[in-house]
Amino acid sequence: MDSRVHSKDVKHAVYQKLQERGVGIEEIARIVMEMQIAYNPLLTLAACVESVHAVLNKRELQHAILIGIELDSLAERGLLSEPIQSIVSSDEGLFGCDETLALGSVFGYGSIAVTTFGYLDKRKSGIIRKLDTKAGSHVHTFLDDLVAGIAAAASGRLAHQQRDREEGTPASAPGADSASME
Amino acid sequence: MDSRVHSKDVKHAVYQKLQERGVGIEEIARIVMEMQIAYNPLLTLAACVESVHAVLNKRELQHAILIGIELDSLAERGLLSEPIQSIVSSDEGLFGCDETLALGSVFGYGSIAVTTFGYLDKRKSGIIRKLDTKAGSHVHTFLDDLVAGIAAAASGRLAHQQRDREEGTPASAPGADSASME
Amino acid sequence: MDSRVHSKDVKHAVYQKLQERGVGIEEIARIVMEMQIAYNPLLTLAACVESVHAVLNKRELQHAILIGIELDSLAERGLLSEPIQSIVSSDEGLFGCDETLALGSVFGYGSIAVTTFGYLDKRKSGIIRKLDTKAGSHVHTFLDDLVAGIAAAASGRLAHQQRDREEGTPASAPGADSASME
Amino acid sequence: MDSRVHSKDVKHAVYQKLQERGVGIEEIARIVMEMQIAYNPLLTLAACVESVHAVLNKRELQHAILIGIELDSLAERGLLSEPIQSIVSSDEGLFGCDETLALGSVFGYGSIAVTTFGYLDKRKSGIIRKLDTKAGSHVHTFLDDLVAGIAAAASGRLAHQQRDREEGTPASAPGADSASME
Repeated sequence: MDSRVHSKDVKHAVYQKLQERGVGIEEIARIVMEMQIAYNPLLTLAACVESVHAVLNKRELQHAILIGIELDSLAERGLLSEPIQSIVSSDEGLFGCDETLALGSVFGYGSIAVTTFGYLDKRKSGIIRKLDTKAGSHVHTFLDDLVAGIAAAASGRLAHQQRDREEGTPASAPGADSASME
Repeated sequence: MDSRVHSKDVKHAVYQKLQERGVGIEEIARIVMEMQIAYNPLLTLAACVESVHAVLNKRELQHAILIGIELDSLAERGLLSEPIQSIVSSDEGLFGCDETLALGSVFGYGSIAVTTFGYLDKRKSGIIRKLDTKAGSHVHTFLDDLVAGIAAAASGRLAHQQRDREEGTPASAPGADSASME
Repeated sequence: MDSRVHSKDVKHAVYQKLQERGVGIEEIARIVMEMQIAYNPLLTLAACVESVHAVLNKRELQHAILIGIELDSLAERGLLSEPIQSIVSSDEGLFGCDETLALGSVFGYGSIAVTTFGYLDKRKSGIIRKLDTKAGSHVHTFLDDLVAGIAAAASGRLAHQQRDREEGTPASAPGADSASME
Repeated sequence: MDSRVHSKDVKHAVYQKLQERGVGIEEIARIVMEMQIAYNPLLTLAACVESVHAVLNKRELQHAILIGIELDSLAERGLLSEPIQSIVSSDEGLFGCDETLALGSVFGYGSIAVTTFGYLDKRKSGIIRKLDTKAGSHVHTFLDDLVAGIAAAASGRLAHQQRDREEGTPASAPGADSASME
């Protein structure tokens, strides 16, 4: 297929759209920090930023982010057909597709990532709350869940990596193959 | 919230959009029949049709269908932004969001529904293959997975109901509370 | 298969084992109350108890509870083989199978049930914390997650039912088919 | 925690138990080959074997394998309590926990791994059918699903890696972080 989009272009679009929608990598990393510091007092924000970049490198999460932001932004401009236009623009509680889309990419980082996602989605810390509060005319129905998903995935990744480091075996984290197996 | 869309309108839109996109309820029911006849030789097409209607009554599946068809039809008209326009319109194999969205509603009907979904998604029987083959300028990237999801959910529902009937306890099927508990 | 266990016996065993392991239905209902009262100030504990009974009626959740309690109690008596004996009896954080088993039954009650599960699993309210704290020689590695799963499922069920009631359409809740569709 | 089991010991136990239960790595790899050859005519059995080893390196899959084999083998010796002893030893179709446990580890390898799992679980090729047929007194209720899960995960991993190779970007496969991100 000649028209196949190259991963580099997909990744570039993800970073650009997150920025356009007001989501900074460091803001996501701060949520990761908040979730993982209890388990690793030596955790640095730099390590959290790195973990966010690592999960943003995954194809299915990239696609979910692009689809979610596309739907938010179409809803914002009133370009969806009814009744989905009203459902998305009102961010109604029992919609479900927003969490489902985000969850798909969270599973890859272990059960701990799934429970972290649920927790973040309910408690809405930091940037997630800011997005969910929808000041003005912005629609962030998908984006708040996606950010919770990115933070949860990056948290799960750190949890497994920390354990690997403690054991000197950098292999068994979900989302990270051992170099020797590659 | 005054602007909340009523379930009746959501349901009506689901049936209308499925019809517009060329998917008949009976075509989905025939896939259900094909999947379940081995376990229940007395199964009728009418029972399969009824099971399809029952799963189409669920809020999250309705939302997934509306979102998926919306994205297919926006892609068909070239109205998505790049790179998601190219990714959706080419139905690329590693996209993932199409299966994720459909899977969300399948889980509710037990493990048997999840494995049936996987099987249908790989083997693409009947209407699913027709949609996947994308004759002409139609985009059915989401719809083929959604139809597999509907058929899988309806199959899982029948499997559990049959067992309940055999035991005289119509209660323990996923997607069906006992009347006395309601 | 003559030896097939009847659903009635499975259900009876579930209630008996929960009681033996110190988990009361009302204690689970109180967690449900705590999670849902913000969305429905008129919610009663009786409605929460009823919702817990309704989800305990589901076959796959019953099986998950029996398997989880079996493993906890085998680990408690030192009857598992190594290394799984040590992993289960120490309730180690990256085990994963405990949350996975519980999650399987939560999916059926919508995205809201999945996020509620994650929240409860992290925050560990009431009886969940009591189980997780493992006073003395008890092993509750699976049971604390299963209780979180039961409470999350019952919460998701109430959320969808409340919406149905508001609309006068008792049909679209996950885990509840409309009578007319049955 | 002094008593924490080292990953090396967990991994060793996984390989040993698979062998004891009659499952060879190459037999799993042959299923992977069968699933992926259509998408990559140059695929070798060696690459499939390597992919099976890579997924067997993941902590949550290792735990699921050990738990599943433990339950199978306890059921085989009649050591589970009723009614779970009868349910597991008869491998009853609506049990669900067997697929749920296996699915947990499959999610990490993308939607393609989930659909492959469903397909394998229904069609039961090669070693999976051999296990499911349960000649004699063996119980393989969990193991057949786990083998389907291992094969599905290894297939999903290959599919994403192939795409990365085609693009010269070895980064975006689920279950594989780019070296530069580590």
